[in-house]
Amino acid sequence: MSRHWDEEVEVLVVGSGFAGMAAAIEARRAGATVLVLEKMASPGGNSVISDGSVAAAGSALQRRHGIEDSPDLMVRDMLRAGLELNHPALARLVADSSAAALKWTIDELGVRYQDRVLQFGGHSVPRTHATPGLSGAALFRPLLQRARDLGAEIRTGAFVEGLVRDPEGGVLGTRVRVGYTFPDAASGRPLTCRAARGVVVATGGFASDVAFRTVQDPRLTPAVASTNHPGATAEMLKELLRGGAAQVHLSWIQLGPWASPDEQGNGVGPTFATYVAFPFGIVVDPATGQRFVNELADRRTRVEALLGIGHPAVAIADTAGVALSGQRIAKCLRKGVVRSFDSLAELARAYGVSPAALERTVATYNEHVARGEDPELGKPILAGAPRLGSPPFLAMRVWPKIHYTMGGVQIDADAQVIDLDGRPIRGLFAAGEVTGGVHGACRLGSTSIMDCLVVGRIAGTRAAATANDRSGRGRVRPRTTPAKRRRNGSPAEG
Amino acid sequence: MSRHWDEEVEVLVVGSGFAGMAAAIEARRAGATVLVLEKMASPGGNSVISDGSVAAAGSALQRRHGIEDSPDLMVRDMLRAGLELNHPALARLVADSSAAALKWTIDELGVRYQDRVLQFGGHSVPRTHATPGLSGAALFRPLLQRARDLGAEIRTGAFVEGLVRDPEGGVLGTRVRVGYTFPDAASGRPLTCRAARGVVVATGGFASDVAFRTVQDPRLTPAVASTNHPGATAEMLKELLRGGAAQVHLSWIQLGPWASPDEQGNGVGPTFATYVAFPFGIVVDPATGQRFVNELADRRTRVEALLGIGHPAVAIADTAGVALSGQRIAKCLRKGVVRSFDSLAELARAYGVSPAALERTVATYNEHVARGEDPELGKPILAGAPRLGSPPFLAMRVWPKIHYTMGGVQIDADAQVIDLDGRPIRGLFAAGEVTGGVHGACRLGSTSIMDCLVVGRIAGTRAAATANDRSGRGRVRPRTTPAKRRRNGSPAEG
Repeated sequence: MSRHWDEEVEVLVVGSGFAGMAAAIEARRAGATVLVLEKMASPGGNSVISDGSVAAAGSALQRRHGIEDSPDLMVRDMLRAGLELNHPALARLVADSSAAALKWTIDELGVRYQDRVLQFGGHSVPRTHATPGLSGAALFRPLLQRARDLGAEIRTGAFVEGLVRDPEGGVLGTRVRVGYTFPDAASGRPLTCRAARGVVVATGGFASDVAFRTVQDPRLTPAVASTNHPGATAEMLKELLRGGAAQVHLSWIQLGPWASPDEQGNGVGPTFATYVAFPFGIVVDPATGQRFVNELADRRTRVEALLGIGHPAVAIADTAGVALSGQRIAKCLRKGVVRSFDSLAELARAYGVSPAALERTVATYNEHVARGEDPELGKPILAGAPRLGSPPFLAMRVWPKIHYTMGGVQIDADAQVIDLDGRPIRGLFAAGEVTGGVHGACRLGSTSIMDCLVVGRIAGTRAAATANDRSGRGRVRPRTTPAKRRRNGSPAEG
Repeated sequence: MSRHWDEEVEVLVVGSGFAGMAAAIEARRAGATVLVLEKMASPGGNSVISDGSVAAAGSALQRRHGIEDSPDLMVRDMLRAGLELNHPALARLVADSSAAALKWTIDELGVRYQDRVLQFGGHSVPRTHATPGLSGAALFRPLLQRARDLGAEIRTGAFVEGLVRDPEGGVLGTRVRVGYTFPDAASGRPLTCRAARGVVVATGGFASDVAFRTVQDPRLTPAVASTNHPGATAEMLKELLRGGAAQVHLSWIQLGPWASPDEQGNGVGPTFATYVAFPFGIVVDPATGQRFVNELADRRTRVEALLGIGHPAVAIADTAGVALSGQRIAKCLRKGVVRSFDSLAELARAYGVSPAALERTVATYNEHVARGEDPELGKPILAGAPRLGSPPFLAMRVWPKIHYTMGGVQIDADAQVIDLDGRPIRGLFAAGEVTGGVHGACRLGSTSIMDCLVVGRIAGTRAAATANDRSGRGRVRPRTTPAKRRRNGSPAEG
C-alpha cells in the first residue's frame, strides 16, 4: 500500500450530485479542506437532470397553504410505500430534518420554489416543493455555487478506482484517475489522494449499469431503458462492497411507468403521461386495442402490467384532457414523443392498433366516465373527467424505464458506512442513492432529493469532525506526507 | 498469508446438509480426497429437520400416477412464484436435472418415497415426492452414509473462520477452528487447511441470524421466530461477500404463515394449520374475533396479514375437518400446540376471544360454506368442505416464522461463485441456500431440497475436476507443503 500520497485533502467527496454538494458545503463550513471528485465531464449526475422536487414535512409553505403535516406522517408514508423494509431510524432522520433542510436551501442557498405544494403518489398530503419549471438544475446550481464559494474544489473527469485502507480496514484515501473519460477504465493517469479526515461516497445509484442490475433482476436487460444519466453505474458501490460494507435491498429497483421509448433518459414524455393521459385518458395494448391496467395504479402495478404485455403500450388523451391538466405539451409534440391525430382511426393506424377495437375500447371507457366508475379495471374516475372525444387526439408510446435503485450500502444515522459485522468503517461515509435503507422496497416521489440533502449534510459535517480522534490514535502512519492544510480547497499535486 | 498448511485435502466442503453431502459424494466419486467441515456438533443442519419433500418434474412416480409434467412447466412455476427475479439458467438447471436427481436418490442411495405425489402451493401439478412420514432424515441419512462409505471425512465442531486466498483472489484453503462449540468464536483451536482442488461452500441460509437478517428486514427481530436450527447463521456468507462475491436477492426472506409460537423451530403445528385449519377451518384475530385473511392465500399475503394484526391469530377447525384432511394430530395435542375444546365458547375464553364475536364469525363462515363461496375474503371453498360445527373444536395459535432465505452469493451453472465483476472466483464453489438466484423472490415448497441435490452434485464434480488446471498455472506457491494425496479422505494434521 502506497504511503506516498500524490495529493492530500481533509475531506474527499466522491460524486457531485445533491448529496455530494451538500456534504462538500458542510465539510467546508466545518473548516475542512474539501475536494470533490466527479468521474463524468460535468458535475451533477442525475441531480441536475432531475425534476427538482423536494419532499418536506412541516414547511412554512405547507403552513401558508393550510396543509397539516408532520414528520411522523411522512415516516408513515415512507414505510408504507417501502413495505416496512425501510431502516426506521434513517427514514425518521430524513423526515425529521426535512423542513429545516428545505429552509436551508431557501435561506442559505437562495433556492426559489413555486408558491404551491404538490401531492405526489403515496404521500398522504401535499408535501412536494417544486422548483420553478420542476428543474433539478434550479436546485443544483445554487448548491454547486455555494460549495465553490466556500472553497471546495470540484474536479471533473476524476474517477476513483479504489479506496486505500489501513490494515484494520479504515479508509485513508483513494486511488484516482485524473483526466479520465467515462467509461474508459484505462483513460487518465493514476494518482493517490489522502483524505486526512474522511471520504464521503455520494456516487448515486446503478440504474444505468446493465451488468450489475441484471444480477438482481434478469429482466432489466438493455431492452429496458433508464431515466438516468449514463454514469449511474456501480463501480464505487462495488468497491465499497469489496471492502466489506454491508448492503441493503440491492434487489429493489424502481421502474417508472410513465416513460417514452422514443426518447433518451427521462425526457419530456412523462409530463404528458403522468399529468394528462393517465388521469384523463387511457392506455391500450396495441396488440389488442384494449386497456389492460388501471392507469392510476401504483408504480409497481403498472410496471408489472407493461412488462406483462411485453411491448410498449399507447397512452391516449384528447384536447379536453390537456386543458384540464393545465400542462403544456408543445415540447412533447415538437420532439415527436407525443403525436397528434384528427381521428381515433388515424391514431390507431399510426400505432398498429385495430381501429375497430380501439373505437370499442374508447366507447366502453366513456361509459365508465359517464357513470363515474370503472368496473373493468378499477381506475378512479376523477371528478369532472371528460369523455374521450375532443380531437385532436394525442398519443404517446409508454414503456417502463429504470428510475431509481433503492438498495445500496448500509449507513447509520451519522452517515457512517457499516460493515458486514455491524460496525462503522472508520473514515468512510456515504449519502444519497448509493446507500440503502431510507426508502425500503419503494421510494416515494420527491423523497430522494431530501434524502440527499439531509444525509449529505450529515456526512460532510461528520467527516470533517472525525479527524482529530483518529490522528490521536496514531492511525495515520508516519510515512504519510504531512498534511498540507489548504484553506482554498485546491490541493496541490504531491 | 500462511503457506504452511496444517492439513491438506483435495476438496473441502463447508457445511454438511443436503448440498454438502451431495457435493462430497460426487467429489469422492471423481477421485478427490474430501473433508467436510461442519461447525455444529452433529451433521445435517436444516436438512435433517426438514420435511424431506423433493420436487421433480417428469419422474417415474409421476408417470405411474398419470401426472403430466415437464421441466418447462416446473421452470414456469418457479419463475411465477419468484416474480421472475430468478436467474433463469439456474432455475432451468434445477428443473432439467430434477427427475435424474430423484432417480439417483432411489437407485444410488436407496431412498424410499411414498407411493403418491403431493401438490404443494404454487406448483401447477403434483410434483412433490415425499419420504415416509415426510422426514428429512429419511433422505439425509442415506446421503451421509454414502459419503462416509466413499471415504469422505465428516468432521463436526469444525468452524471455518475464513478463506485463504492467493494474491489474485483465488481460494487456496481455509482457516478452521477444530473442537469449536457454536456459537463461541474463541472455542476450539485454529488450524489451516489446504484445499488443493477447491472449496465447496454449502453452509445454508441465515434465517437464525438476527443481526444479519434485520439489516434486510428490520421487522425480523427476535420476536419473529424461525423454523431453522440455531446454526443457520451468516458467518460464511459474510466471508464470501468480504471476499468479493456478488450477492443476489439478500432482502427476499420467506416466512411461513403456518407456524405455532408455542413450540420451537418448525414443530408439529404446521401439519394441523396447513392440512386441517387453513382448508377446512378459519383463522381469527383474537382481538376482534373476526377472520382477516383468506386462509388459502399465498404465503406472502398471509404473512403480511399476520404481521399487520401484530399478534398471533387463532386457527380453528373441528373434528369433521380433521377427518377430511386424513391427518393425524395426536402429536399436536400431546405437545399442547393444538388444544381441544367441547364448545366454541370454551375455545374463545381460552384464547381471550369474545365468545359472541366468534359465534358470529363462525355463523357467517358457515353461510359461505353453504353457498360455496366466500365473498368476505375470497377463500376458495373446497368441494365437500364441512360446516364448522362438529365438536370437539381444535385450535392453535399461528404466527409467522422465518423459513428460508432466497438470497445468497451468485453462482453460475457450474456452481462457481461469481465476483462483483461477473467473473468466477477460482477454486470457490457454492450450492444450496447460501446461494441466490434459483428461487428469485419466493421459493416454492419442495424445490429447495432438489436445488441442494442438483447444484451440490455439480459443485462436487466441478471442484474435483478443476485441480490440474490450477497447479499447471503455477498458482500454488513453492512454499506450500507438498500435497499429501490421500485416498481415504481422512487428512492427517500437518
